[in-house]
Amino acid sequence: MASTKFEILAREEFARAGRLHLAHGTVETPVFMPVGTVGAVKTVEAAELPLWGTQILLGNTYHLYLRPGLEILKHFGGLHPFMAWDGPILTDSGGFQVFSLGKMQKLDDRGVTFRSHLNGDLVDLTPEKSAEIQQVIGSDIAMVLDECLALPSTEQALEKAVERSYTWAQRFLAVPRLSTQNIFGILQGGTSVPLRQRSLELTQSLPIDGIAIGGLSVGEPHTEMVRVLEDLAPRLPTALPHYLMGVGTPLDLLEAIRCGVDMFDCVLPTRNGRNGGFFTDAGLLNIRNKVHALDKNPVDENCACPACSRYSRGYLRHLFMTREILGCRLATLHNVHYYHRLMRTARDAIKAGTFVELYRRLKPQFAVGYGRSASQTDEADDGHTLLEREE
Amino acid sequence: MASTKFEILAREEFARAGRLHLAHGTVETPVFMPVGTVGAVKTVEAAELPLWGTQILLGNTYHLYLRPGLEILKHFGGLHPFMAWDGPILTDSGGFQVFSLGKMQKLDDRGVTFRSHLNGDLVDLTPEKSAEIQQVIGSDIAMVLDECLALPSTEQALEKAVERSYTWAQRFLAVPRLSTQNIFGILQGGTSVPLRQRSLELTQSLPIDGIAIGGLSVGEPHTEMVRVLEDLAPRLPTALPHYLMGVGTPLDLLEAIRCGVDMFDCVLPTRNGRNGGFFTDAGLLNIRNKVHALDKNPVDENCACPACSRYSRGYLRHLFMTREILGCRLATLHNVHYYHRLMRTARDAIKAGTFVELYRRLKPQFAVGYGRSASQTDEADDGHTLLEREE
Repeated sequence: MASTKFEILAREEFARAGRLHLAHGTVETPVFMPVGTVGAVKTVEAAELPLWGTQILLGNTYHLYLRPGLEILKHFGGLHPFMAWDGPILTDSGGFQVFSLGKMQKLDDRGVTFRSHLNGDLVDLTPEKSAEIQQVIGSDIAMVLDECLALPSTEQALEKAVERSYTWAQRFLAVPRLSTQNIFGILQGGTSVPLRQRSLELTQSLPIDGIAIGGLSVGEPHTEMVRVLEDLAPRLPTALPHYLMGVGTPLDLLEAIRCGVDMFDCVLPTRNGRNGGFFTDAGLLNIRNKVHALDKNPVDENCACPACSRYSRGYLRHLFMTREILGCRLATLHNVHYYHRLMRTARDAIKAGTFVELYRRLKPQFAVGYGRSASQTDEADDGHTLLEREE
Repeated sequence: MASTKFEILAREEFARAGRLHLAHGTVETPVFMPVGTVGAVKTVEAAELPLWGTQILLGNTYHLYLRPGLEILKHFGGLHPFMAWDGPILTDSGGFQVFSLGKMQKLDDRGVTFRSHLNGDLVDLTPEKSAEIQQVIGSDIAMVLDECLALPSTEQALEKAVERSYTWAQRFLAVPRLSTQNIFGILQGGTSVPLRQRSLELTQSLPIDGIAIGGLSVGEPHTEMVRVLEDLAPRLPTALPHYLMGVGTPLDLLEAIRCGVDMFDCVLPTRNGRNGGFFTDAGLLNIRNKVHALDKNPVDENCACPACSRYSRGYLRHLFMTREILGCRLATLHNVHYYHRLMRTARDAIKAGTFVELYRRLKPQFAVGYGRSASQTDEADDGHTLLEREE
């Protein structure tokens, strides 16, 4: 049912360049979606983001359900008018934050009961409830509710999560849908190839508009994640867009595009930005480092973002040393632009048939700069590993 | 000596509309200067500010001396290139923060010794040192070092501060000056009319380019401040620009313009902005108030700032309830724009000969909205009264 919504413009091995037509606009893939947790990409107006390459935002169902909540979202006619963003929005199901942020009270086949991380209120999330919330939000793409486990987990727990995610997806899809909303299914199965294949088989049988790979970048080594993606690459349904959830570093994205992934979201650029980390081809530059104090050069002389086009490393360092919010904003703009530039470079290469060449050129430097796992590059933000994925 | 630098274009009673020609550009007066404490107006790039009316920024010598410090400022060639702002900058002398923020160790005729509020280092500030720091900063307007007392203070202490400020000003002015830098003298004397007149007499005898009124809005009632300004109005040298330091609410500014003041700086718009206070003609609107939760209207439908032109009160409230930095930024832009609009309205009225009419129209509503003192309107920020004046 999605073939008319997702056009593939070019392929190179498993990598694809495409166009995803959504109610609020068309998205060129591969695409990176900045995370706008509660209706704002931290420090930045949504209206500014397209200048730096943003085509589609991610909103977090869990956070939006708690604040502003359904009453306010309904009153304003959904998240688009509420936050004054008329481009596409993808929402997650809320499940990920329940597993990572909420104090889970009960998890069974019916759904999840948890305590709000804000005030301890007892809240209930079921597949039907997640579908309802995402309809009120009015996202262009809704995600089914899945059970996402941190890794390592036992084979038994992973298998149970695959089966439960499937029955939850069926119930989610049984809710009468909005004509303007696409629904993506989600693969689970950890780093087990047989479980991933089983999850793919189940998920493919559902009437979905796209397929997401969940449960990665949740504690496993980068090479394990790549092994899973490589196994999935020839098996994923080619007509559907492929979305790798919550991933990752520039190295992760490069590998995933090679394996046919079209869509990404991750907090790394925004969260690292707020902590003084600037993404560059050579790795994450910590602007707080004393070596930058007298440096009149920009972070990246080839970058057109406000931070690089107007300010020296010395000034940017000063902003972080004096805890000026402006530093967080400038680094966020730089990092979001960096991720979008990387996606555009990949898109252009796939269209030109030079992606493999690009991959071979970038991989060695990315491996030096980003060879450690995503959570490890996020030095200043030391939450639970799962927290690294979404704000 | 300043007559060629400051042009008066129109007068109405004591109110004046003028033009101040500085090394980095011309400033239309009456003017409000946003406070860019350590080389940034909090949450905003300097490059954005002229869009919302900013002509000249204020930098804080005390803060800049501690961070980034003279070595870095010298290396970058001053504050203008360091922060990439090529418009005019006024710097205070550093004295105010020494009295309010630093742990003062010793104050005598020589100068002030204090402990840094950042790390406890023992630091020394003399008139000569203040002149040197401001030359390294390279501001268009430097302020002499003065002794600023909180009110109430004893007549004796106020008198001593007037005399000491005069001798400090003489020493400050004896330092060989930059050809690109104007130097303003500062009146002290609390709310004592005779002391203010004595301070004016002393200050006028100095080779200064402008005259500042210090030591107001430091604890005294609004009406007391207006009484001092009204007494000074016919006495201030007409050829020099008049700058009221660290003041104040829209009501304060309206009264001061009526008394011939040309220049203002204050943290109220930026600090209140970061705490969810939006300035309006009807008073400070606390966006956190529940009454705004479902409100689809902008804060001010006649305001062109990003907050008012794009967002509802409901969304702005949500940003503050969820502690999104974007809320601080939007409120800052609104408030800075509000202050600049007020100045432009006053300028235009003085040129049109309708300022008294404007004054009579605005004063009653400002008296309702801002009748309390500046520090009292700053509800969410409960520092020492002196701290209300500068960041």
